[in-house]
Amino acid sequence: MRVAITGGGGFLGQRVARRLAREGHLGGRAVTGLVLFDIAAPPMPEAPFPVVSIAGDVADLPETAIPPGSDVVFHLAAVVSAAAEADYDLGRRVNLRGTDAVVDACRRLARPPRVVFTSSVASFSASQSEVIGAATRQVPANSYGAQKAAAELILADATRRGFLDAVTLRLPTVCIRPGRPNKAASSFVSSILREPLNGEAAELPVADDFALWIASPAQATDWLLHAASLDTAGMGLDRSVNPPGLTVTVGEMLAALEAANPGARALVRRVAAPEIEAIVTTWPARFDPARALSLGFAPHGSLDALVGEFIADTRRAS
Amino acid sequence: MRVAITGGGGFLGQRVARRLAREGHLGGRAVTGLVLFDIAAPPMPEAPFPVVSIAGDVADLPETAIPPGSDVVFHLAAVVSAAAEADYDLGRRVNLRGTDAVVDACRRLARPPRVVFTSSVASFSASQSEVIGAATRQVPANSYGAQKAAAELILADATRRGFLDAVTLRLPTVCIRPGRPNKAASSFVSSILREPLNGEAAELPVADDFALWIASPAQATDWLLHAASLDTAGMGLDRSVNPPGLTVTVGEMLAALEAANPGARALVRRVAAPEIEAIVTTWPARFDPARALSLGFAPHGSLDALVGEFIADTRRAS
Repeated sequence: MRVAITGGGGFLGQRVARRLAREGHLGGRAVTGLVLFDIAAPPMPEAPFPVVSIAGDVADLPETAIPPGSDVVFHLAAVVSAAAEADYDLGRRVNLRGTDAVVDACRRLARPPRVVFTSSVASFSASQSEVIGAATRQVPANSYGAQKAAAELILADATRRGFLDAVTLRLPTVCIRPGRPNKAASSFVSSILREPLNGEAAELPVADDFALWIASPAQATDWLLHAASLDTAGMGLDRSVNPPGLTVTVGEMLAALEAANPGARALVRRVAAPEIEAIVTTWPARFDPARALSLGFAPHGSLDALVGEFIADTRRAS
Repeated sequence: MRVAITGGGGFLGQRVARRLAREGHLGGRAVTGLVLFDIAAPPMPEAPFPVVSIAGDVADLPETAIPPGSDVVFHLAAVVSAAAEADYDLGRRVNLRGTDAVVDACRRLARPPRVVFTSSVASFSASQSEVIGAATRQVPANSYGAQKAAAELILADATRRGFLDAVTLRLPTVCIRPGRPNKAASSFVSSILREPLNGEAAELPVADDFALWIASPAQATDWLLHAASLDTAGMGLDRSVNPPGLTVTVGEMLAALEAANPGARALVRRVAAPEIEAIVTTWPARFDPARALSLGFAPHGSLDALVGEFIADTRRAS
């Protein structure tokens, strides 16, 4: 089977590419080709099949990005929340026009490919106590979430029309991301674990009882691969799934940090950041995963396992 | 106040224009100018203020369509359900790119205008028994509904960003439309009243107990004018409203027809049309209007009044 990944140079795109390269198959079928597409030519993993790397603008997608014979398209290219909020036109261009371009590329193929799309918990707004279910309406509180929710509608309609066969995953906040703290409101979620585990200080702008809906990078990658091969016959018109993430409080995260690395908790410094609090309090933290579980998405491991995964990844990389 | 109407040549656009021309004010403020925009230059009503008529493509909206100083924009331009289903690119261009063009036009204005947008009951899919509430998720079963639901998200986000101040009305099936039967799945809804009231035969493809969610042209126009001037301060992130339409069964419609014009019912002929039945059974027929009523949208009059309105309109026109 032939696979294409938009946003193939990104954090999750690279993880999916490396998994395919390592395993050589997807859903029991041998991978015979992989195209990685991103704004800059993505790094190519060593693989037992041909890999092509292409640079370009997803809103002006070249035909080579989703070539004839593509069976699976991971459509991961996105302008994320802080950037889409800062630059409306850029967010609209990548998150909406980019999705339209993927639809059009799929329409040109002889067989409708599976399209795995990443939407986000940021497409919801809710209180900390609300439980989001499969039927919950998306009322986004940010442009990124609005554009993702609109793109979900476009892909579900394209599925109904037979242009493609979409499965959208509304990913939880991915934690622990590698890298450095940044200006994203969600930056602290990874930072309060990552920096102390690396012996550095981190800033915490919310209270201990603040709850979050998270998923580890490995778990998110597993779900993306499952979405690429699951039987969609029973999904009906609704092609979007809230995968079974993990509800954790900041207090539980700090306890897991301390358990993994005694003394590390002392590196987390509480700061007042009302502008960050104002944003993150619209993020839902509790979901009913019944539909995702019935579609075969694996339940998330423990918070301790998530911290252990990061430590193992860091050791492997160094 | 200055008013602009995209789709100003359409059925509802012309009704709004004539109401403004006749009344000379909107929400207690004098109308000082009206721009009508459509694919063909719209007819201009006689009015106590200047009226401009412009022809063009809404996706490539000229600056004159929403000129500097515009206070209210009725964004009614749309490719409707049968046409959007028949031509995907045309539906996307008008229903999505057209909405983006309206957003961009509003961003250029010094003050964010009120934008009144028409979405549709077709953005939902449901069984006949389901009751749609303000929190019900839109899972469209047609491209028109999907594009309208996506445009709602785009306008709500543009509102949150301060580009404009949107109120979206998810209109019920408008009945009785003037004109002739057409290939739209909804054609029979108006036709089973309109044709017999005009002494002509009509075809009925569904059973007597089939329920519909409808609104008269006058009621829909009233709601559009109310949406143009209501206080949006309490609406929060959710800028979409299900106005308080009327749930009627086909049997009730036929009884109202017979009451208005004894013998007319015999002009309605039952036909088997499984392809129409398959489409219309996804249309919800029952709504909870609590939010709309709290926002001041007037409850709908009776079915007998709706039939009487059509008879009076027809007499006035002839």
